[in-house]
Amino acid sequence: MSKIEGRTPKGFRDFLGTEAANRQAITNKLSQTFERFGFEPLITPALEYAEVLKGKYGEEEKLIYEFEDRGGRQVALRYDQTVPLARVIAAYPNLPKPYKRYQIQPVWRAENPQKGRFREFVQADIDTIGTASALADAETIACTVSAMEELGFKNFTLKVNDREIFAGLPNSVISAIDKLPKIGRDAVMLLLKNQNYSDFQAEDILKKVTDSPPTARINQLFDLLAKFKISSGRYAFDPSLARGLDYYTGLIFELEVEGYTAGSVGGGGRYDKLIGQFSETPLPAVGFSFGLDRIMEAAQELKLFPARSSQSQVLVTIFSQDLLPQSLETASALRNEGINTEIYLDPESKLDKQLKYADSKNIPYALLLGPQELEKKVVTLKDLKSGEQKQIRLAQVRSIVENK
Amino acid sequence: MSKIEGRTPKGFRDFLGTEAANRQAITNKLSQTFERFGFEPLITPALEYAEVLKGKYGEEEKLIYEFEDRGGRQVALRYDQTVPLARVIAAYPNLPKPYKRYQIQPVWRAENPQKGRFREFVQADIDTIGTASALADAETIACTVSAMEELGFKNFTLKVNDREIFAGLPNSVISAIDKLPKIGRDAVMLLLKNQNYSDFQAEDILKKVTDSPPTARINQLFDLLAKFKISSGRYAFDPSLARGLDYYTGLIFELEVEGYTAGSVGGGGRYDKLIGQFSETPLPAVGFSFGLDRIMEAAQELKLFPARSSQSQVLVTIFSQDLLPQSLETASALRNEGINTEIYLDPESKLDKQLKYADSKNIPYALLLGPQELEKKVVTLKDLKSGEQKQIRLAQVRSIVENK
Repeated sequence: MSKIEGRTPKGFRDFLGTEAANRQAITNKLSQTFERFGFEPLITPALEYAEVLKGKYGEEEKLIYEFEDRGGRQVALRYDQTVPLARVIAAYPNLPKPYKRYQIQPVWRAENPQKGRFREFVQADIDTIGTASALADAETIACTVSAMEELGFKNFTLKVNDREIFAGLPNSVISAIDKLPKIGRDAVMLLLKNQNYSDFQAEDILKKVTDSPPTARINQLFDLLAKFKISSGRYAFDPSLARGLDYYTGLIFELEVEGYTAGSVGGGGRYDKLIGQFSETPLPAVGFSFGLDRIMEAAQELKLFPARSSQSQVLVTIFSQDLLPQSLETASALRNEGINTEIYLDPESKLDKQLKYADSKNIPYALLLGPQELEKKVVTLKDLKSGEQKQIRLAQVRSIVENK
Repeated sequence: MSKIEGRTPKGFRDFLGTEAANRQAITNKLSQTFERFGFEPLITPALEYAEVLKGKYGEEEKLIYEFEDRGGRQVALRYDQTVPLARVIAAYPNLPKPYKRYQIQPVWRAENPQKGRFREFVQADIDTIGTASALADAETIACTVSAMEELGFKNFTLKVNDREIFAGLPNSVISAIDKLPKIGRDAVMLLLKNQNYSDFQAEDILKKVTDSPPTARINQLFDLLAKFKISSGRYAFDPSLARGLDYYTGLIFELEVEGYTAGSVGGGGRYDKLIGQFSETPLPAVGFSFGLDRIMEAAQELKLFPARSSQSQVLVTIFSQDLLPQSLETASALRNEGINTEIYLDPESKLDKQLKYADSKNIPYALLLGPQELEKKVVTLKDLKSGEQKQIRLAQVRSIVENK
C-alpha cells in the first residue's frame, strides 16, 4: 500500500473542527431562513451528462470538469446550480408553479486558484420559477436581507439595477462601466476611449448611465420592499451595476458587506429567458445566490462566530476502572441534557494526562468524579482556562457550561 | 442553446421537496448525536489526487471515478471517507489524539446500478483514531445506538463479531461463512465442498465457527456496553459475521433494522493497521459508517417521517393590491414566530386560484385577510384538507399550525 501524502489537489480544501462546524452553522441558518420564506430544498447529483452543461456558460465553459466515464459517456461535475435547476424543471413538467426552491451544494470550476478563489466552493441559491411578478423580486430580496440578519451581519447593502438602463449599449461598454466602483471614473473613460469612442462620446455614455433615474420596475420594487418593512438603508439603486450580462434580463442584485473588501458575497437577478430555453413553455425566473465561502470569510473577519474553539463542552474524566460506570453514567446524563460531552477513553490514565488532553483539544471544562465527590453527591467542575474548580451538583453543570 | 433533457446519469438522483427535507432532517439528527459524543465535523474535498486512493480498495479499485484534469493531473472522486481521513491524519500530524471525527458527505462508485444501489450515495461516518482502548469500541456502539434511537428506530440489532474467530481460515472460507444468514447452512456447505473440503471437514469448519464462544475482547465490550446502560437487546454476538475482511483487524459490527430486509443499514469495526500504513506511527482506529440511503429507505418503510407533504405550513393569500401591505406584514409576523410561510406571489389573482396553488403544493393551511378580518382584528385560517375555516387572532395561528 502506497504511503498517503497529505496534499489535497490545488484549489481544494479540508475543513476541520471549528471551521467545519461554522460552515454547518451557516448552512443551517440559511436553510432555515429559506424555508421560512417557503423555498423547498432541492438536491441534484454532482455529475450531469456533459451535454446538459454544454453551451450554457459562454466562455466559462472551458472551466467545466468534464470526463468520460467507464461506460464511455461524457459526464461533468456540477458547475452551478441554475442549469441543474433548469434540467429538474424539464424533468418534472408538472411541478406546481411558481416553483420555489433552495439548493446549497458544492460546485466545481477549474479556475486558476488564487486568494479567495477555489476550485470547489459552495453556493446557496434561492430561485422562484414561473412568475414575472414584481412581488417575487421583492420576496427574493426580503429573504436575502432576512438571511443576512439571521447570520448576524449588521451593515450590508443590496445594490440594485435594471438591465434596461443599458439598453442599446454594446457588451464591451457595459463591462467597462461595471468596473466603475473598482477602478474609478478615469480608468473607465480610458477603457471607453480604447474602444474608439471620443472623449465627448465616452463622457456622454458614462454620464447617461450614471445619471440614469431608477426604472419603473426598480421603483415598483422599492415600493414593495417598503411594504415588506425592509429598512431603506438595506438596499440602494446603483446604475453602474452590470453583473453577468448574457444571463440576466431585468433586475440585477449584488450584496456587499461593509468592511469586507474581497468582493460581493452574493448576487442575483431576473433571468426570464434561461429556463424557457430548456422547457416547452417560457418560464420567467428570479433568484439570488450566496457564495458560502465569501460569507464565511466575511463572518470570520467581522467575528460573528462564537468564540468556541471545540465542539465538545465538557470532558468527563475517569478516576479509576472501579468508578468507570459512574463516569459513563454522568456523561450520558450530560448528553441527555444536550451538552456535547466527551469521556476520556483510557480508564488507566492519570488525571494529569486526561486534563492535558482536554486542554490540547480546547475543551473548556473537565468534570472530575472521585470517591469524595460520589460520597457528597457532587461533581467537581474545572474551568480549564482559569484553572478554577468547584464542587457542584450535576444538575448545575448545564447552566455553567452553556453560559461559557 | 441546446435543449436540456431531464435525465440524470444512471445511478444518480435528484431529491425534491419532502424527500430532500427528510434527508436533511436525518443528517442533522446524526450530526447532533455525533457531536453529543464528542465527535467533531470533518469536510474533505470531492476530488483527491488519484494516487491517494490507488491501492487502498483492493478489487473494488476499478469502481473509482478517475480522470485527468486540465492540468494533466490524475484525480479521483471520493470513494469512501476513510482514505480521505487517513490523508487528513497524515496532513495534520499534530492533531491531538485520539482524534474523533464525523463526516457526512456523498461518495461516488461506478457500480452497476440496481435496486437500492446507486453511483452517488451519502455515508455518515464516526471514527476514533489513535487509541486501542476497548472503551472507544464501546463508545462507538453507544453513539450508534443513540443515533438510531434519536432517528426514531425502535427495533434494531447491532451484530458483533471478532476477526479472531476466523484465525487461520483462508479468505475464501470466511467469505463463504459470511453468506450464512443470506443463503443458509446447506448452501454454505456446498460452497465449502466446492473449495475441495470433504463433507466432514466442511461440517467441522462450520461448526467450529458457529459454535465459537465470544472472544475476550467481545466479553470486555459487552461488559462496557452494560456500563453504558445500553439494553442487551440492542446488540448480539454473531460468530458468522465476517464483513470487509482485508480491512478490519478485530471487532466488527453490522447494524440491522427489523422489518427492513434490503440489507444492513451500517457497519464498522476496528482497523488498527490502515491509518498507520499512511502515517509515520501506527494509529489504531475504530469506526462506524451509516449508509444514509439505507437509513432513509428503512425510515420511510417504517413511517418514521412526519406526514408533512410540504415544507411550507401556511399560504398567506392576498385579498387585493390595496391590502397587500397587510398580507406582507402578516407573513412576516408568522415567519418571526418560526412558521414556514408563503405569500401568494400575484396580487391580482382571484382567491380561488390562490387556494388551488396551496392545494397543489400540499400546503396545509391558507390564511385569508380581507376588509372584514381587518376590521375585526382577526384572520381567517382555512384547513385545506377538511375545508374548515375559522376566524382567529393572529397569535393563535401558531398553535393550530404546529399541532397539525
